[in-house]
Amino acid sequence: MECSLTDWRVKRIGRWEVQFNMSALQEEKAVRLRDLAARLRIDSIQATTAAGSGHPSSCASAAEIVSALFFSVMRFNPAEPDNPENDAFVLSKGHAAPLLYSALAEAGVIPREELLKLRRIDSILEGHPTPRIPFVKAATGSLGQGLSVGVGLALAAKHLDRTADRTYVLLGDGESAEGAVWEAAASASHYGLDNLCAILDINRLGQSEPTMAGHDLAAYERRWQAFGWRTLSVDGHDVEQLLSAFETAAREKGRPTMILARTLKGKGIPEEEDKGGFHGKPVEKEAAEEAIRALERQIHGRAPEAKKPPATAQAVVEKVVEWRSEPPAPPYAPGGKPVATRKAFGEALAAIGAVNQDIVVLDGDVKNSTYTELFQEKHPERFFQMYIAEQNMVGAAMGLAAKGKIPFAATFACFLARAYDFVRMAAIGGSNIKLVGTHAGVSIGEDGPSQMGLEDLAMFAAQPNFLVLYPSDAVSAWRSVQLAAERIGPAYLRMTRPNTPVIYEDGESFQAGKCKVLRRSGDDRITIVGAGVTLFEALKAHKELLKKGIATRIVDLFSVQPIDAETLAACVEETGGRVLVVEDHYARGGIGEAVGAALAQYRPRVASLAVREIPRSGSPAELMDAFGISAGSIVRKVELLLEQS
Amino acid sequence: MECSLTDWRVKRIGRWEVQFNMSALQEEKAVRLRDLAARLRIDSIQATTAAGSGHPSSCASAAEIVSALFFSVMRFNPAEPDNPENDAFVLSKGHAAPLLYSALAEAGVIPREELLKLRRIDSILEGHPTPRIPFVKAATGSLGQGLSVGVGLALAAKHLDRTADRTYVLLGDGESAEGAVWEAAASASHYGLDNLCAILDINRLGQSEPTMAGHDLAAYERRWQAFGWRTLSVDGHDVEQLLSAFETAAREKGRPTMILARTLKGKGIPEEEDKGGFHGKPVEKEAAEEAIRALERQIHGRAPEAKKPPATAQAVVEKVVEWRSEPPAPPYAPGGKPVATRKAFGEALAAIGAVNQDIVVLDGDVKNSTYTELFQEKHPERFFQMYIAEQNMVGAAMGLAAKGKIPFAATFACFLARAYDFVRMAAIGGSNIKLVGTHAGVSIGEDGPSQMGLEDLAMFAAQPNFLVLYPSDAVSAWRSVQLAAERIGPAYLRMTRPNTPVIYEDGESFQAGKCKVLRRSGDDRITIVGAGVTLFEALKAHKELLKKGIATRIVDLFSVQPIDAETLAACVEETGGRVLVVEDHYARGGIGEAVGAALAQYRPRVASLAVREIPRSGSPAELMDAFGISAGSIVRKVELLLEQS
Repeated sequence: MECSLTDWRVKRIGRWEVQFNMSALQEEKAVRLRDLAARLRIDSIQATTAAGSGHPSSCASAAEIVSALFFSVMRFNPAEPDNPENDAFVLSKGHAAPLLYSALAEAGVIPREELLKLRRIDSILEGHPTPRIPFVKAATGSLGQGLSVGVGLALAAKHLDRTADRTYVLLGDGESAEGAVWEAAASASHYGLDNLCAILDINRLGQSEPTMAGHDLAAYERRWQAFGWRTLSVDGHDVEQLLSAFETAAREKGRPTMILARTLKGKGIPEEEDKGGFHGKPVEKEAAEEAIRALERQIHGRAPEAKKPPATAQAVVEKVVEWRSEPPAPPYAPGGKPVATRKAFGEALAAIGAVNQDIVVLDGDVKNSTYTELFQEKHPERFFQMYIAEQNMVGAAMGLAAKGKIPFAATFACFLARAYDFVRMAAIGGSNIKLVGTHAGVSIGEDGPSQMGLEDLAMFAAQPNFLVLYPSDAVSAWRSVQLAAERIGPAYLRMTRPNTPVIYEDGESFQAGKCKVLRRSGDDRITIVGAGVTLFEALKAHKELLKKGIATRIVDLFSVQPIDAETLAACVEETGGRVLVVEDHYARGGIGEAVGAALAQYRPRVASLAVREIPRSGSPAELMDAFGISAGSIVRKVELLLEQS
Repeated sequence: MECSLTDWRVKRIGRWEVQFNMSALQEEKAVRLRDLAARLRIDSIQATTAAGSGHPSSCASAAEIVSALFFSVMRFNPAEPDNPENDAFVLSKGHAAPLLYSALAEAGVIPREELLKLRRIDSILEGHPTPRIPFVKAATGSLGQGLSVGVGLALAAKHLDRTADRTYVLLGDGESAEGAVWEAAASASHYGLDNLCAILDINRLGQSEPTMAGHDLAAYERRWQAFGWRTLSVDGHDVEQLLSAFETAAREKGRPTMILARTLKGKGIPEEEDKGGFHGKPVEKEAAEEAIRALERQIHGRAPEAKKPPATAQAVVEKVVEWRSEPPAPPYAPGGKPVATRKAFGEALAAIGAVNQDIVVLDGDVKNSTYTELFQEKHPERFFQMYIAEQNMVGAAMGLAAKGKIPFAATFACFLARAYDFVRMAAIGGSNIKLVGTHAGVSIGEDGPSQMGLEDLAMFAAQPNFLVLYPSDAVSAWRSVQLAAERIGPAYLRMTRPNTPVIYEDGESFQAGKCKVLRRSGDDRITIVGAGVTLFEALKAHKELLKKGIATRIVDLFSVQPIDAETLAACVEETGGRVLVVEDHYARGGIGEAVGAALAQYRPRVASLAVREIPRSGSPAELMDAFGISAGSIVRKVELLLEQS
């Protein structure tokens, strides 16, 4: 290689000025990165062939991209892989996990010996990445989610922590059909995330067919540019082009960069290169050995000693929630003006946010309905308008959580259905996100079923590690915000639209996994469990039934998951084994079934009033009556149950 | 207005050639459309003020667009509003419902008297449109879904029925932040849907804030053009510009058209025009009267007699499923080679599709895993590759269903979580879609939790009008396809990845709402309910337990919703009141709770084995054992339960 004069650079090293031949140095670096790419391919083939499953061809197309990132571009400390000031990497195309694992082993983050345990039940190296693995920020593997996580990571660095770390997200071309990718694209440019750099591995081939755009890089350029991104098109197997693109991206100001990398699926695996039909298939043993031999021949340098990961690398640091001072008590009192739980949520968020700087809030263009605008007024720098794009809102919350924030993301309960696949992945990753759904149930009234959250409890409680709280009054709503913030892990809070009376004193203590018994006597003949609006219907029914000489025990469920099986069981035992659960939610997956499942071993008579058909528009009172969850419905049902038994 | 020579056109009317002054005629038409727009505004204000809620300002921005469409551009027969050859209109910004209702009343599809019953429980005119209203194709109101429905309608017309009708979709600008819109955008251009014309009502203001792009029409042009659409930017309050754009759109070949209409939110309501803070608020009575007086002054022509809708307009035609010949029987027999239910699903679809031309299939780039490729091989013209974009896949299925097709849309069960908000809206609209989720549960093995459907039953069974079937062997899988096709309304089929033994004869009859009792004796001490892979674990446990002298009754649940409470109750009564449900699904919302709820009144001892924590990678057998749903786990649990009672 010839060197022109301009290749010589002067650099000061200590007291010395040294002339460097830059192109020779760069060529040396390029050789090293190409060698490493070959090694990443070898590892990916070996691991998947040993596992008997996996996606080597999807690893192969991105080997140079990952090599350049991990061994030249990114700044991170392998001894502290979860340091939030490391540059971050999100593998949105999670099925290329073995490539990432190999890079982490090369970098000395995980032991090399783990690689051949890929996909085994005794290994942390699962089929798709999870944060159980050091350096991994979020669980991926459901395509089209990584860029939103990247938005959250980059938002935290640029707009909250103001740190210099950069975020890199590697996407597959097939996954750019997912709308969530375009939600993230719009959001990243809206927030000017010039610390975010994404790479699209354009290998032309989806699982079952070529992608829509194939190798038409110009088509991708038009789309990403239209969404406000700088684009750089490169040969994704040319490390020099990649390095140059990453450098350009790092200098870009005011907008994110997308590196469009033209690649070949199966690159380096002779039989598979650029061919369909190999997605998600390990290479047969013989072909694998042959491919590995060919790849080994490509390696010029000597293999450096594999780095040993420091002993601390895998240690999970237990996060501690930091309150500057005691979280403030709710400013409500029984007998005062009725307050909607959604409003108390907003007020609590604003107040509690003042004593914890990690609390950040995201909203999907309904902040005047969810009352997150109250937080925004007090803490505008920690509020992010995410517009009508719920998937990206939840994904960005996952990214913020990975940076140590406590993100509360709110919209109507029903619209969180939009983000259910993100919710599922947040659960898999154990992400510390707090989702809040307002406007639960038919009690929203005239807007009709499209705006009613009637399956949100089914959604969230199905995820076994979600905390699910359902406050009924302003005091419990306020406390639910504090409980969600204090607990490390994913949480969901269900809030109601109409105003409800305040029933708890401001000092009342609430706990996850504990219900409240509101009415109790020695003569109680049945336990009635309610939550949200139905708790007040139950209280009305209690009065009505007392007039008829029927004493009932009234329970405010509050904590849907975990559920207070102990108190419930005691109540039911004391009330003739009878329990009636009333809820403003569809029957399946609601609190009726939660109570039924919790009490199964006690064989109670569990009856349930719930919404059992698709509702419609009407006034809240009309609808609660029409769908059988009003005080009147409760009275009738209790009388019927007592007659029957 | 001056007329140039070129304004004169000769037209043949019967035997006469008549010279028309086109510009005068067009001016006359424009006056009429402007008058109608004013009337639509008046109706929208009146209806929402009377209802005390609603979105008049969102109606006002689109009044000219709807006027031009309904009274000049669209071809439809008001006497047959649900004729599939009418031009179709989808109001993606469903909160502008009163505007649509007013247009339908003006057009003579619904009675004008209904308008003032808006949002009342006794009216079909709900807060957001549903197909209960004639001419409405799908429930809207969750933003960002309408364009996908439009894709389905236009696919049916262009690629299946080859009819000349056109599809129009009106979107709000705020909702274009939803990724689903861009999934639909990519899909529409991929399929060359030149019979699809969308209109973006760019009124600049979201619910809580201005939108990201405001009135920057050029920004929208770039995005839509980059996604392969023809764009036409117009003043959305200028009917002549709108008419000209619709004409241009109708002549466009090979790609869809997006009309970018610059509008003002609240147009025609003096206090609100182009101002924030009025979203979703009815106009106060006095301001409403004033606005109406001002709008009335804009009307030049006399009000034409309101058309009376024909008596038939609201009649719902009961759809009948047409089999050309008897649906073929499954080609499997007990004792033969094990077959995965997902494969039997694909084979059934291909075979049953041959005797019913209405069956169409959509897949999200996993056709070689869901086996829908078997249908594609036989019926390529009825197969649509929807790539990795599940929301659009389900939305397009809704559009196809509205055209009388029976769409089966398949992907991995877990990825249907991506489309849960569409599922919810399909339930609200009672859409005749058939969703199929393969790769359910931990039994998929090494790919890990991101690919495991463990909450799909919770999702689908929460929707009260979904049929949910969960076949265990190839014969029942085959029959489940037929049952889903025959039943009008939404359905979900859950399929398994691993091969399972064939246990039913090809002639075995299956029904929705009926389970199968597979092992039964007079000595049975407990009923064990399984489905999918766990049924075979239950059968193994049955054998194992028999060796220990413990007789068990084995039930194949098959139909999760409706559930066979009668048979289950009889079994449980005959087996000492004991039942154990075993499932490859999370505990909450799964078949355990379904059985528990169905039997609640009988107070059985319901025990459940289910996946109770986030799983991980491993072999199917290891995982089923580790998460406690294997034959071994069943044996241990049964012994424990019998000891305890």
